[in-house]
Amino acid sequence: MYVHLMQVHYAAPGMPDELDDTALDAWRAFLTAHAHATRRISRELVAEGLPDLGWYDLLWALRRSPGGRLRVNELAREVVLSPTAMSRFVDRAVAAGVVAREPDPDDRRAQQVVLTDEGLALLRRMWPVYRRGIAEHFAGQLHGDPGELAATLRRIADSARG
Amino acid sequence: MYVHLMQVHYAAPGMPDELDDTALDAWRAFLTAHAHATRRISRELVAEGLPDLGWYDLLWALRRSPGGRLRVNELAREVVLSPTAMSRFVDRAVAAGVVAREPDPDDRRAQQVVLTDEGLALLRRMWPVYRRGIAEHFAGQLHGDPGELAATLRRIADSARG
Repeated sequence: MYVHLMQVHYAAPGMPDELDDTALDAWRAFLTAHAHATRRISRELVAEGLPDLGWYDLLWALRRSPGGRLRVNELAREVVLSPTAMSRFVDRAVAAGVVAREPDPDDRRAQQVVLTDEGLALLRRMWPVYRRGIAEHFAGQLHGDPGELAATLRRIADSARG
Repeated sequence: MYVHLMQVHYAAPGMPDELDDTALDAWRAFLTAHAHATRRISRELVAEGLPDLGWYDLLWALRRSPGGRLRVNELAREVVLSPTAMSRFVDRAVAAGVVAREPDPDDRRAQQVVLTDEGLALLRRMWPVYRRGIAEHFAGQLHGDPGELAATLRRIADSARG
């Protein structure tokens, strides 16, 4: 993995951007595990006539927000999409009837995205399929302590977010 | 996390799709860590006037393939994109001069995507920035054995791929 390019090492040994092959291998495994797990779960949702994981994330971000409503830029931050991409996604979700755009009561010129009853019903239909996928392809593969893994993953997110 | 929807439990305790809150928390941390780490590294690449991580994956998939060439559907499998999305991505990469489409010597009607010298040069310019990001935001956050984490992640990928 990265064997040829690994040889183009600009950093002197001991520099903070030093990266050994074991850690690089773990990074590649991280990307691959994410890609395959999310694609598999999306396929399992679609096989049940449901939308894919991206829709779940959108609906769930609204569900857990206070009042079930967020502005587009807040949604984009929650789901980690660009505001432009999120705005287009919201258009499709509005067309599907699972969210609606409403004027922001605090700023008449702004809009909020709200979860509709249909959106909540969809979220509830998706969850059993999603949960089964997480249990089978993720939780069932953790032989160690999930809490320790979660702590490592949170350090990664915090470092990257900072 | 998922508190309200967790209460909609269809599975009886002990069923294989049972999922406890600790494992679910680790799954959420997995998604968040991936989203933030890849976005952060992409931002660091773009700040250096380079294309984002998706381009690295594309060029790298060609670089490591025998002969530096793959068909679009093979590339899509490597990078985990749909063939349609990959075909559009390849169009942009051709326009940027970093890959080229060539007839497949084994099947005159098919095409292969090949890495150009410019594409290889771009890959080499991207790698130091990418490597620094992996070292800082991923490898530097692993307090345990990276080999053990990699093994867990490979089990996840294998389960999801299977």
